[in-house]
Formats: sequence, C-alpha cells, structure tokens
Amino acid sequence: MELWYSERGIVPGLALSVEVSKVLHEEQTDFQHLAVVDTPLCGRMLWLDNIIMTSIKDEFIYHEMISHVALNTHENPKKVLVIGGGDGGAIREIIKHPSVEKAVLVEIDRRVVEVSKEYLPEIACALDDPKVEVHCVDGIQYVRDHKNEFDVILVDSTDPIGPAVGLFEGSFYKNCYDALKEDGIFVAQTESPYYNEELIPKVNKDIRSLYPITNIYLAYVPTYPSGCWTFTMGSKKYDPKAVDFSTRPSYKTRYYNHDVHKAAFALPNFVQELINK
Amino acid sequence: MELWYSERGIVPGLALSVEVSKVLHEEQTDFQHLAVVDTPLCGRMLWLDNIIMTSIKDEFIYHEMISHVALNTHENPKKVLVIGGGDGGAIREIIKHPSVEKAVLVEIDRRVVEVSKEYLPEIACALDDPKVEVHCVDGIQYVRDHKNEFDVILVDSTDPIGPAVGLFEGSFYKNCYDALKEDGIFVAQTESPYYNEELIPKVNKDIRSLYPITNIYLAYVPTYPSGCWTFTMGSKKYDPKAVDFSTRPSYKTRYYNHDVHKAAFALPNFVQELINK
Repeated sequence: MELWYSERGIVPGLALSVEVSKVLHEEQTDFQHLAVVDTPLCGRMLWLDNIIMTSIKDEFIYHEMISHVALNTHENPKKVLVIGGGDGGAIREIIKHPSVEKAVLVEIDRRVVEVSKEYLPEIACALDDPKVEVHCVDGIQYVRDHKNEFDVILVDSTDPIGPAVGLFEGSFYKNCYDALKEDGIFVAQTESPYYNEELIPKVNKDIRSLYPITNIYLAYVPTYPSGCWTFTMGSKKYDPKAVDFSTRPSYKTRYYNHDVHKAAFALPNFVQELINK
Repeated sequence: MELWYSERGIVPGLALSVEVSKVLHEEQTDFQHLAVVDTPLCGRMLWLDNIIMTSIKDEFIYHEMISHVALNTHENPKKVLVIGGGDGGAIREIIKHPSVEKAVLVEIDRRVVEVSKEYLPEIACALDDPKVEVHCVDGIQYVRDHKNEFDVILVDSTDPIGPAVGLFEGSFYKNCYDALKEDGIFVAQTESPYYNEELIPKVNKDIRSLYPITNIYLAYVPTYPSGCWTFTMGSKKYDPKAVDFSTRPSYKTRYYNHDVHKAAFALPNFVQELINK
C-alpha cells in the first residue's frame, strides 16, 4: 500500500503530492495541524495545515535565500529578528554571518519549534546557539513592542491564510519598519508570482510606501507551488543591487552565491508588470 | 464530480495534479498517448504519455527561454532548426527575430502538430508562416542528413523516456554539431537539476566534448517537476555571457529580457557542483 500526502487547496485546481514512507508525528497544536513525515523523494518533511513547509532535500534554498540576500546587503548586521520560521532554518543561516551578535526567533507556535528540534535537527540545529533567543509569542505584538532595535527583520511566515494573515498587513509592516534601526532591512516571503497576482502588488505597494529602496527577488523552491518564489525587500539605506561583495564574509552555502544574489533581482517581464500594477 | 489529471511516474514519489474542466481530445498516436484538456488554473494543456507538455498559462516561459537566449547570442541567425517542439511554441518565438529567414520544425509525431494547430492556436500560430517548414520525420535521421546548414539548433524534446531517448545521446549531439555552421549554437532542454542528477552532468560532458563554449542556464517553468528547468547550450563561437545587447533586435516577450538572459547563467552552488561532477 502506498501512502501519499497531497497539498490541495492552497492553489485552487492544483495539487502537489508526495509519497510518504512513514508518518513520524501528527498533532493539532493551538494554531494549526502539524505533521512530520519521511518521504523517499524529499527526505523528512514538515507540513502545517496540509501545506508543505520544508523538506530536507530542498530546505537549504529557501533558508539561504530569505537570509543571505539581506545579511549581505547590510554592511554590518548585528541584531536580526525572524518572525515565524519556527523550524530554525533561517536562524541557522543567519548565524553564519560573523557580524551577527544576536538572532531572535519569534514563532507563535511553540510546538513548531519543539517538533523541529526533535525531528529536523539538521534544520533546527542553531536554535540552542548562545547567540540565539527564541520567543514563542505573537510576532505582531512583538514588533509593536520593539523600536529601533534590529538591523534586519525577516518574515518567514506560512501562507496568508490561517495564523499568518496578520503578517501580510500594512500595520504589521509599519511596526517592522519602526522596529528596524535607521539603516535596517526588511524581507518577507511573498509567495509565487504565478498564483498570487493580487498579493504581490499589494505587499510591494505597502513596502514601497515605507522604504526608499524596495525590491522583489526570486528563488527556485521546488516544494512550493510553481517552484518560483518571491521575497519582498524594503531597505532604509543599503541597495541590494549595489553590494560590494569583496567586503562580505565567506561561508558555506549550497544555493546562494554572489552571482545568484545579483541574478535573483532580474525579474521576468510578467513579474515586473505585476509589481507595477 | 471533480476531474483531475495527475502527472505520476516521471519523478518517482512525486505527483502534480491539475483539475480538468473538460477533456477536448485524447488519442493514441503512433508514438505516444496525446491529450488536450481545459483546466481552470492553467488554461488549455497538452499532455503526452500522461506528462504535462505545455499550458496556455505558462507556455511563454519555456518557449521564450529555449529560443531567445541562443538567438540573441548568435550575431545573425538566419536558419534555425527545432527538433521536437511540435506544438510550435519555439517556432513562434524564433520568427520574432528579423534576421531569421527560415525556421525548420522536425517533429516525429505528425499528430502533435495537427492537434496543436487545432486546439492550441495561440502556441501553434506560426506553423503556417511562409518562413516556416514543418517536417514530420525522425529528428535523429534528419540531422544525420544535413551538414553545415543551421545557425541555431534547438532540441525541444519530451523527457528522456519513450520516443525522445535518442535525443539525449552522444551520437545525436555529434550530428547536431555537424549540422551547424562554423559559428552555430546548440540548445537542448535538459530537465530539472533536482530530479535528474545523472542526466545533466552526462549531457554537459557530451556537449563540452564538442563545443568550446558550453553553459547551462535556468528558467522557472511552473508546470515541470520542481519548477526549475535547465537548458544546455553548446556554442562554436559566440559567448552567451558576453552578448552586446545594444545590437540585438527588440520584440515583445513576457518572460525573457536582457537582464533575465544574463541572470539565467548564474547557477546555484548545487547546480554548479552537478555539472562539475
């Protein structure tokens, strides 16, 4: 008997299914349904509300690309905040930067952190690092309470349904802006340009109204719908397209490199048209 | 009752399914199973042997990226050959180049051409253009019989199973090399770097043994497994990374632009490692 998990509903009319060799953990947390499964193709996977969050096979792409583009754009990132991202993948990448003194993870669902530590140690391995602080509280409230404190804020949220809806709203973006220092950088994962033709221009407009330098960049994320993923970046001072890479630290990555950093900002015409809507 | 078509088997352990509103055509041709369906998400789609070939929603990406990178790398492409690509999408893009005097399509399965003309006129629209010649014969034999004739050859094949197996072999690549003029350019679609870890280094090695300038480039193709697609280019003279775009023609595209051309050659570390195997 074959067991398959199907991601259905996030993009109406589309389903991505993965063969599952073993269900390791399933529970209903206070916020969402959570499952950890082993798969022959993608290795171990984390699913939330029947949507693929991450897999051992491809997690490096999303986690490197949400982190290193901003951290290399900033000249000296010391204090970094991640909203969401309870699996710890973004945190693992952030602390590769030698300038980083403190990485704060704010994940609303404590069980995502605990289950990731137990079942996905390759991803969650940095969560016990002395530079890392983990707060299992509401990210929306957290940024409201912190002003002028962070060099970089990354919003590593689930999709804009369920618990993450507030992380795509203008008031949240304004509070993130205020929580950043005067040369801070904001990055949010902002879904696929194929299947989110309303969300991306809306977020782009919100971020552009706050930051002098606003850009969208792309990465290939095979386990997310369409495989083409956008990140929206607002920057108060530093231009991500004009980084002097000769002054940037080197560290091991599997997807990100300086050519990929530059190339990620080259937008296909249809994506350009989307953000100019 | 919902009807869904599932692509299963091409990548073991993975299935992409699309809701179908209407099955317009199904037949077993002399070479493969062929289906045309309407879908709410992707518009009209062509499937061969239960694998997605193209959809109205995203066909522009694959067809622009298999064509324009080579046609803009060549300084004066006049005669272009497409092997496979019976839907006509690559041909439609090729004849956008004013220098092109003749575009030859060699598709083994006459029914793919006929059905595309009937059901996918947006894609097949250029097949009756006076600059276009269509031959429904075996591409392997065709290139064997033509020497020193083409400026650009594009291999727009199905996956390396079934009728297309021979289009991924060294002897075919050698015949393509001989069918090209002394400054000719060869491009083949070469599948996803996530799920074809043996094929891509093999093709790369074959092409590198023939051409002084060999490169892989990438495009986001949402309806192909992983969404990340490779094209392998061998060039006898022109460097695709050193194109003087100021001398190139302009025409309407929805994905390709000069920044995208350059960015497509920026390879993530894991893809670089794959081709250096």
